[in-house]
Amino acid sequence: MTTVHDLTTPALLVDVDALDANLADMAAALPGPRLRPHVKAHKTTALAARQAAIGHAGFTCATVREVEGMAAAGLGEDLLLANEVLDARRLGVLDARVTLAIDSEETLRAAVDGGVREVLVDVNVGLPRCGIAPSRAGWLADRARAAGLTVRGVMGYEGHLMMLDDVAERGRLTQECMERLLAAHADVGGEIVSGGGTGTYALNTWVTEVQAGSYALMDTAYTAAGIPFRQALTVLGTVISVTAPAGETPGWAVADVGLKALGMDHGNPAVPGAQVWFCSDEHLTFAPDAPVAVGDRVRVVPAHVDPTMALHERVHPVRGDEVLDTWAVDLRGW
Amino acid sequence: MTTVHDLTTPALLVDVDALDANLADMAAALPGPRLRPHVKAHKTTALAARQAAIGHAGFTCATVREVEGMAAAGLGEDLLLANEVLDARRLGVLDARVTLAIDSEETLRAAVDGGVREVLVDVNVGLPRCGIAPSRAGWLADRARAAGLTVRGVMGYEGHLMMLDDVAERGRLTQECMERLLAAHADVGGEIVSGGGTGTYALNTWVTEVQAGSYALMDTAYTAAGIPFRQALTVLGTVISVTAPAGETPGWAVADVGLKALGMDHGNPAVPGAQVWFCSDEHLTFAPDAPVAVGDRVRVVPAHVDPTMALHERVHPVRGDEVLDTWAVDLRGW
Repeated sequence: MTTVHDLTTPALLVDVDALDANLADMAAALPGPRLRPHVKAHKTTALAARQAAIGHAGFTCATVREVEGMAAAGLGEDLLLANEVLDARRLGVLDARVTLAIDSEETLRAAVDGGVREVLVDVNVGLPRCGIAPSRAGWLADRARAAGLTVRGVMGYEGHLMMLDDVAERGRLTQECMERLLAAHADVGGEIVSGGGTGTYALNTWVTEVQAGSYALMDTAYTAAGIPFRQALTVLGTVISVTAPAGETPGWAVADVGLKALGMDHGNPAVPGAQVWFCSDEHLTFAPDAPVAVGDRVRVVPAHVDPTMALHERVHPVRGDEVLDTWAVDLRGW
Repeated sequence: MTTVHDLTTPALLVDVDALDANLADMAAALPGPRLRPHVKAHKTTALAARQAAIGHAGFTCATVREVEGMAAAGLGEDLLLANEVLDARRLGVLDARVTLAIDSEETLRAAVDGGVREVLVDVNVGLPRCGIAPSRAGWLADRARAAGLTVRGVMGYEGHLMMLDDVAERGRLTQECMERLLAAHADVGGEIVSGGGTGTYALNTWVTEVQAGSYALMDTAYTAAGIPFRQALTVLGTVISVTAPAGETPGWAVADVGLKALGMDHGNPAVPGAQVWFCSDEHLTFAPDAPVAVGDRVRVVPAHVDPTMALHERVHPVRGDEVLDTWAVDLRGW
């Protein structure tokens, strides 16, 4: 039996029972095509295959590389690249059904030039990012159809609402955003209204499909926002140095899980039973509540799951200390 | 001629003239063995080869993988792993001269068990991270020699001082730290006193060698701290969406350089001629001072170079818009 003590650290671990519980809970809330899981959250086709097995055949991607990787893994039944690109040539040659977001004449042209055949009109619903103004969406859909593209519908992401603490307010503002999206949809047509995420999956009743991704693995930021999924992802580290308290200086310990092994945009990770002081490139300095020894293993909980996955070549599904498998994080890069 | 317009974005660019100027300026200040460049800052053996060509034969590494990669690239004349490890077996088998930091009996034992023959005693000089107390360094050196290891000297990193704005204060505190290190060295012996970094390379006159790394590529954090090297690293992006001003809402643009392409632990990147609003996984929303168009290329300046490098598979040395080569970022992972 391989255990976590056999792994080189830092190493990504997925608690497979927590993962499967998250997948089951979400599939119960949003069965089959009601969820289009976002692979950017895990970048791992082995994990996407588990989402497909529980009934979600369509997936959301953020990069061309993610679409390519999903197609190569045989998961290309219905892939949405929910992002604008100016060079779609790598998409047009794939043996997969690929739908591309467009929000301008330039991105429409890139879809045509790249050999993409199906698009969604990306609508700005309030987040200052991509998306055409709702009032212009119908115009762009007409242009796309005139250029020979199939317009499957609209998408709009209320990303600025995902972490709002006040659930009632999150719901009210989500409704405002989705009313803008539905107004655009009335002009655009098509069967798809795509949006939402882990922060609004239970509130967003206006879309035909939700693009949630983080729910599968979770992180401390979504947990703090009250999202009811289990923490499945940790980074295993080894304690490499321990300094005992001296005079008025508290003791601390150092693990080999640094900021190069952690998505840091949401701040420091958490270590259960310890206070995290700071991260360096390859070090985490923390004050444990109970003494730890050099050589001990610790499990570090990332503040943001998506960029944490992007830093690791592989992830190990585990049950307790048993390592069940090794999955390649095979959708990294661009 | 390949230009930046031919690259898939996001793409890491190195201004090769700025890089070479940085290498030359540092080699003038700290020639040959006075500098032991830290490869963690760039993780790229092609760039390390340029540092070796200008006279620095010894290198500092932060991970076993970095040591392995440097040895495989023929740059293994004198490699210091300036970090503690509990499993040194991959080091003992390398065709390279490897010196390992130790700060405890456990890490000493790991060196012996892994077949490592040379060590430095890592001394805590004030940064709450690894390192044995100065007063205990001689004891650990004696234990190491008794175990058959060669003790080459001491190292101690004043990392908490690198970004201090007040240069005089930075100098005064560096002296305090180095007095601790020299006291330890008096007990330990050996020819090496290793320490310092890009923030203190000109102030730290006590060490025999400086471990600077960031100086080669630089970032906005070190530039803000007044370190006189040129910004050589940028992330090339494509503008994928533009929203014109509407009423009282300012316009913004979106580039495809998101937080998965940027080290975010020091905060947002900079875009010359623009205000950065925020980063998402694969997006950068910014307000340009002058209008930009969909399809334009932008160069984004990371806040922290080291973790930015760790997110990319390759880096392109450029002169202006011309792409001169492609270097693998081949020291990533663990």
